[in-house]
Amino acid sequence: MLPVLPWQMILKRVQQLMYEAIHMKNTDMPDKTLGLLRQEYLKLDWEGRSRALLVLSTEFGIDNARVVNLMRHYLSLQPDDSKREIQKLEDSERGVLAARYRTEHDLRSALVPLSSRLFEHMNGQVGGLKFLVDLRADLISVIKQQNLASLRALDANLKGMFSTWLGPACLELHQITWEDSASLLEKIVGYEAVHPISNLYDLKRRLGVGRRCYGYFHPAMPGEPLVFIEVALTKDMGASIQEVLFDEVPLPESEATAALFYSISSTQPGLKGIDLGNFLIKRVARLLQQEMSQLQVFTTLSPIPGFLKWLIPKLVSACKSSNVNPSGNSVDDTAASNVFKEELLHKSEERAILEVFGGDNKDANPLEILLRLLTSDQEWVKTEKLADTVRPCLMRLCARYLLREKKRGKALDPVTNFHVRNGAIVERLNWMGNRSTKGLQESAGIMVNYLYRLEKVEEINQAYLNQGEIRASPAVEEYLQPNYRACI
Amino acid sequence: MLPVLPWQMILKRVQQLMYEAIHMKNTDMPDKTLGLLRQEYLKLDWEGRSRALLVLSTEFGIDNARVVNLMRHYLSLQPDDSKREIQKLEDSERGVLAARYRTEHDLRSALVPLSSRLFEHMNGQVGGLKFLVDLRADLISVIKQQNLASLRALDANLKGMFSTWLGPACLELHQITWEDSASLLEKIVGYEAVHPISNLYDLKRRLGVGRRCYGYFHPAMPGEPLVFIEVALTKDMGASIQEVLFDEVPLPESEATAALFYSISSTQPGLKGIDLGNFLIKRVARLLQQEMSQLQVFTTLSPIPGFLKWLIPKLVSACKSSNVNPSGNSVDDTAASNVFKEELLHKSEERAILEVFGGDNKDANPLEILLRLLTSDQEWVKTEKLADTVRPCLMRLCARYLLREKKRGKALDPVTNFHVRNGAIVERLNWMGNRSTKGLQESAGIMVNYLYRLEKVEEINQAYLNQGEIRASPAVEEYLQPNYRACI
Repeated sequence: MLPVLPWQMILKRVQQLMYEAIHMKNTDMPDKTLGLLRQEYLKLDWEGRSRALLVLSTEFGIDNARVVNLMRHYLSLQPDDSKREIQKLEDSERGVLAARYRTEHDLRSALVPLSSRLFEHMNGQVGGLKFLVDLRADLISVIKQQNLASLRALDANLKGMFSTWLGPACLELHQITWEDSASLLEKIVGYEAVHPISNLYDLKRRLGVGRRCYGYFHPAMPGEPLVFIEVALTKDMGASIQEVLFDEVPLPESEATAALFYSISSTQPGLKGIDLGNFLIKRVARLLQQEMSQLQVFTTLSPIPGFLKWLIPKLVSACKSSNVNPSGNSVDDTAASNVFKEELLHKSEERAILEVFGGDNKDANPLEILLRLLTSDQEWVKTEKLADTVRPCLMRLCARYLLREKKRGKALDPVTNFHVRNGAIVERLNWMGNRSTKGLQESAGIMVNYLYRLEKVEEINQAYLNQGEIRASPAVEEYLQPNYRACI
Repeated sequence: MLPVLPWQMILKRVQQLMYEAIHMKNTDMPDKTLGLLRQEYLKLDWEGRSRALLVLSTEFGIDNARVVNLMRHYLSLQPDDSKREIQKLEDSERGVLAARYRTEHDLRSALVPLSSRLFEHMNGQVGGLKFLVDLRADLISVIKQQNLASLRALDANLKGMFSTWLGPACLELHQITWEDSASLLEKIVGYEAVHPISNLYDLKRRLGVGRRCYGYFHPAMPGEPLVFIEVALTKDMGASIQEVLFDEVPLPESEATAALFYSISSTQPGLKGIDLGNFLIKRVARLLQQEMSQLQVFTTLSPIPGFLKWLIPKLVSACKSSNVNPSGNSVDDTAASNVFKEELLHKSEERAILEVFGGDNKDANPLEILLRLLTSDQEWVKTEKLADTVRPCLMRLCARYLLREKKRGKALDPVTNFHVRNGAIVERLNWMGNRSTKGLQESAGIMVNYLYRLEKVEEINQAYLNQGEIRASPAVEEYLQPNYRACI
């Protein structure tokens, strides 16, 4: 017989504690058992935790027999079709109605898995919520490896509980400043998800004059920012991240008329899918409006993470179809290649590209040239003439990507979906808004401003959810006009 | 045709708004509709509100057809008995399992009544939670008049939602002092439920030296204390409310070794059944322990609201049976009267009462005398000799009432149930602890100290919930010893 490995012993202990915690005769689960359970779970390594979560998902579900009985009882209480005409509330019918309500109530209760009850009690403990958030981070990883229905169900339940426990009424808004603890500031540096912060001194610049940083905290998780946002107070709507991050002389705050939300980061992997950013943006916008009435314009300066991910495959297949039919004649083409052939570039854009990049090559394909530029080492960016050549078509294609590309009725770009769902409009595209390698690789350096008008958010949200409308400013809509001709 | 009354029109509008709010095509309910709904509901008078709540409870329930379908589907997915032996997870079985989880999830969702969804969205609004708490106060009153199953179901759901939204992690503890707004202090005066406060100056004494007041607040209901507690810092465990309320010279706080919780008040009728007091007491005890390490003893000074309500009917029926058999001979008695005949008083107690109160009356009945004293104008209290005579038996009967009288496994006295369930023990009975009319009428002036030891609360709570044990100090248990003879 093989020796029992340490993690196997701990796992056994974890299972034992889970059973103890759940099968207490009364509804109050002792702190002690839950405390031990947390301790033992945290001792487990990856393998052990996967197994513990699997056990939790399969052996701590619902009492199936009880649920089946309640369902059968409920179905037996359904009104007889033949009696449907008789609307009088007889005593017996009233009794049946009361029995139906009771059964609904009992069924609601019986459908709560034991694991959910365990989570509820865990949440009542000091430190319990943080433990559960980290546990869900584990669970999300396990599901990536073993996509089982039981694990997905466990995840859905726990996520639902987080949504309830982390409602905006419970969250505390805190302005993060250089007066905060180094321990908190170090977390901010680590959690920053959009524009990496080099070190604490780099962070200091983002907390100084003309800058603000706010985070949402939950009283049950002290010192742990759940989501935070960085704001720049600017003269006009900001157009590039370079000005925000590297401006030497900050604008005196009294001269600022615009607030620019340039970075928002969710910090807990275990809170994936819980949208706290929406509440945070609006809360901060309202706060800034109250504190500084001269601020008129509230926009983001956002990346477009999906633009080139979308454009490049399209260029690849456009290149393939244009190579199959170099002459442009489509009479003998198969129907299939006709359907897929899309005109990505306007004729004028193709000509401009060929003129500057084509050289002497008669067979130069503007689509291939563009593809090569976008997948290269981005030297073209450094030369203004070269950059100016591709600018019109890239801006136009970007506008098309943002406003027209959808998936299941939602904007294809996740950042667009986020902001438009929040009730913002696509206000302006910014060429070379982000010159960093990441910015160029993601979206050819283009950044977008989403504009928030608090009195309009509900209307825009409704139009998006009901009609799938992605509202944009006239300047952005203009890119998509058929007669669009760029002027730089 | 009768003219349409104003409240009927408003009610129509309320119904309309309810439908609008619920039947939006998407899941985000517009703030505007919900805001209007609240406005219109608040315009309704009592009759209108009753009807509105009835409509909400009967027409905003679950989609019965959908629930029935899901149930039938779930039942069809149950494993066949004949296959139970075959434990292999075939692909089809794995699919069935996934379908079962999905159906469970859908059923959980389908069992959430439309009214609950309405409440959820309402809670997301500013002022929404307070509106719902007041709405539940209305609902509780309506149920007193019309005890319908549909209304009870609506109440149970809303109460469940409050339990979730008002978990201790979300509540803010605030020490209430003379520095707080007059508006808040006025609310405290109005909400005080145990020892009435005459006016703001009377309150000031309860916030001064040697006194503390703490309340739980929820961020979504600013300025509204949900529950508050009053504490006196004393030299020894306090024995009477007179010393607490009317002591002229407060003890210097450095000399205090005991904290006495002498009043706890829940403020919102709409939060009936939501226990916030438990968390509050423990939170405050921990806080005081940290702030003032010289505090060793944490007790309450509590009323006994049910003592005479229990004792007097017993005395009445004991009087009846003793009058039926004046001689004490029971040979010819009917079996029934024997069963009900209880020895309320010990022989020695009866003799003492007769000696002092009996006068020359040979047929004087000590039970009748006691009954008369307790239901009279309480003049006996003022004479020490008279009070001392009934003291032993009343204290003994009170101890019996607290420790032995139960209903469905729980302590009969609601205050006892509250504290013992929290994990406190019955520490000491105090004769003339409350000399006010209310105190004398409720419990012949007796008050009780419940003692909290934070490290013991879980053990005592478990013993109560599992075995129904009401733990008491040796001094209190002594009253119930068979050989108990009181020494004053």
